[in-house]
Amino acid sequence: MSITVWQAREPGAPLERAERPMLEPALDELVLEVLHCGLCHSDLSMLENQWGVSSFPLVPGHEVVGRVVQVGEGVDPGVIGQLRGLGWICGSCSHCGQCLGGTGNLCPSLEATIVGRQGGFASHVTARQDWAIPLPEGMDPAVAGPLFCGGITVFAPLIDEAVSPTAHVAVIGIGGLGHMALQFARAWGCEVTALTTTLAKAEEAKRFGAHQVEALDNLANLSGRFDLVINTVNHCLDWGAVMASLAPRGRLHQLGAVLEPIQVGAFDLIMARRSITGSPTSSPASLLKMVEFCVRHNIRPLVEHLPMDRVNDAIERLRRGDVRYRFVLDAAAVAKG
Amino acid sequence: MSITVWQAREPGAPLERAERPMLEPALDELVLEVLHCGLCHSDLSMLENQWGVSSFPLVPGHEVVGRVVQVGEGVDPGVIGQLRGLGWICGSCSHCGQCLGGTGNLCPSLEATIVGRQGGFASHVTARQDWAIPLPEGMDPAVAGPLFCGGITVFAPLIDEAVSPTAHVAVIGIGGLGHMALQFARAWGCEVTALTTTLAKAEEAKRFGAHQVEALDNLANLSGRFDLVINTVNHCLDWGAVMASLAPRGRLHQLGAVLEPIQVGAFDLIMARRSITGSPTSSPASLLKMVEFCVRHNIRPLVEHLPMDRVNDAIERLRRGDVRYRFVLDAAAVAKG
Repeated sequence: MSITVWQAREPGAPLERAERPMLEPALDELVLEVLHCGLCHSDLSMLENQWGVSSFPLVPGHEVVGRVVQVGEGVDPGVIGQLRGLGWICGSCSHCGQCLGGTGNLCPSLEATIVGRQGGFASHVTARQDWAIPLPEGMDPAVAGPLFCGGITVFAPLIDEAVSPTAHVAVIGIGGLGHMALQFARAWGCEVTALTTTLAKAEEAKRFGAHQVEALDNLANLSGRFDLVINTVNHCLDWGAVMASLAPRGRLHQLGAVLEPIQVGAFDLIMARRSITGSPTSSPASLLKMVEFCVRHNIRPLVEHLPMDRVNDAIERLRRGDVRYRFVLDAAAVAKG
Repeated sequence: MSITVWQAREPGAPLERAERPMLEPALDELVLEVLHCGLCHSDLSMLENQWGVSSFPLVPGHEVVGRVVQVGEGVDPGVIGQLRGLGWICGSCSHCGQCLGGTGNLCPSLEATIVGRQGGFASHVTARQDWAIPLPEGMDPAVAGPLFCGGITVFAPLIDEAVSPTAHVAVIGIGGLGHMALQFARAWGCEVTALTTTLAKAEEAKRFGAHQVEALDNLANLSGRFDLVINTVNHCLDWGAVMASLAPRGRLHQLGAVLEPIQVGAFDLIMARRSITGSPTSSPASLLKMVEFCVRHNIRPLVEHLPMDRVNDAIERLRRGDVRYRFVLDAAAVAKG
C-alpha cells in the first residue's frame, strides 16, 4: 500500500509531499491513519540535524492522533477503529530490564518515529501497539496530539518522580511545554509559579493554572521557594539563581535541551540536599495515566490548527516563535470535514 | 567550670592549648567529656576560612566520641556516663518543617560545633541531646569518631535516597570518606567499584569492600555501568565521563566540595533520566541507623591515633595527604591509659 508523507530531502529543506510504500506492521504493531499531528520544537532540531541523528529524507511529526486501520498478526483486530495517540517513541524491545521494569522509554533498543523510521506528517504511521495509547472517552482528538510529546514531557517530572501535591512548583517558560506544565502542576494539587521573561503572558499563565507569575529576572529574590523547578527553556540561565530558588531537598528538572553545559556549584547541591534531574518523555504506563488525568481535569493543549499541506507555514512560524502555544496539522479529510 | 581547648587565633595559625569557660548546657543539652576526636578535611577548610564562615579563635574538631558528664534540666540524668558520638551538627530547632519531618540536618537554624560554637579538640563539648548519638554495644569508641562526620556523609547517599541493594555503586576517591563508602556500599548489598587515581591502593580498596578497582582515567570505558556514583573528591573531574558512566536512571552523588562549577550536559540528564544529588551529613534518625549498621557489619574507619596535644602534627600530615585514612586524636587521660 502506498501512503502520503511530507518529507525534507536534506537538512533545512522545506517539506515536500511524496508517496512511499507503507511500513507494514510487524506482529505486535498497528497502523494509524493520521488525523492530526502536532508540531514540536524538536521537529525543527531534527529537520536541521542539530543533534546529528537525523537521516534524510526525513518525515517529522511525533504528536500523532490517528485511527487504527490495520494490525499485525499478534494484535487483537478488535482495536481497529480505535483512536490512539503516538509520540516520539514507536517501539521498544519489551524484554530488557527497562521495558520489563516499566521504564520502556529508557530501553536501549528504542525506536523513534522520526529517528530512522517515519513520523506523523503522513497519511499513515506504523507503531507498536503498546506505544499507541488509546484516547479515553472525553478527550478531544483534535487537540490531543501535543500531549504525546510536549504533554508527557512535562507530566513525567510529576508522576515519575512521585511529586507530592504539597509541593511548591515553578515552571520556567510559558510556551509549548510550559503552558501544559502549568495545567498539570495545578491539577496535581501543587502551588504553582510561572517564571517568564514575557510578563505580557502573565494573565494567560494564570488561566493555565499559575497561582502567581514572576519575572525570571527576579529569581534571585525567590530564594528557597520551590520544591521543584521544571525548566522548559533551552538556553543558558543564571544556574546559581535557579539552584538558590530551590527549598531544601528541592529539585531542578531540566527539560530544555540547552547545548552549553549547565553549571552548578557543589555547595548548592550539598548544603540543602538539592538535586538536578532530567527526563525523556515517559513510559506507556505513565502515558495511560496522563490521558486519564487530562480528561478528569480538563487539561488540554492550546493549539492553532492548520491543514497538513500547510505544514511549511507552521514550521516557519514556529521558527519565529509565532504560535500560542502549539500547532496541530490536520489531515486533509479532517480539514475538509 | 573551666575547660581546655585547642584553638587557632587566626586563619592558618596553629592550634594552641587554652582554657575557657565551659558552655553551660541549655535545657535539652548535655556535656560530653571528650575521649576521642577525628580530624576531617573540612577542619582544614575551616581553619583557613576557605568557606568564609569561620570565626576566631576557632576550636575545630567535629568527630567526637565522649562520655556524658552533665545534662541540662530537660534531659534525663540517667544518660550520665553514656558514651556518645557527635558530628558537625550540635543542635537544630526541633520545631521547623525539616526537624519535624525527620531531616533536621536541613534545619535553617542549624547549630554546628565548629561554626560559631566550639569543636571537639577540647576537654568538653556541649550539644543537644538528640544530636549526640549513643554508641551501641560492640562499637569501639576509639575508632568511632570519624563515623559522625565522614561516615554519615557517605552513608547518607545510601540510606536517605533509599538505594537498592541491587545497585551498582562506584566510589570516586579512596580516602577518608571513600574508604568508609566502600565498606557501607558493600554491606548494603551492592556491587562496588572503587575509582581511583592511585591504583597502588587497589588491594586495600578490595579489603574495604570493592569488588573491583578501576583507574579514574579509564572512566570513559565504563559507559552506562553505575546506578550510583558517590564522588568524594573535591577537585574538577571529566564530568561528561562521570555522567556517561551512569546507567539509565543513574545518579551522581556529589560530596566533594569542589569550588569550580560542576559542568553537566542537558542531554546527559535528559536522555537516560540521570540525576545529580548532594547532601550534608544526615539526620539523627539516620545516624542511629548508621551506628547499628556499623556494628552488625563490623564497619569501622581505619584510623591512626595521636594524642590530642599533637593535633598540629596531625593537621600538617593531613595537609600533605599523609594519612591512611583518618586521624583520631585521643584525650590526655585516654592517651595515658
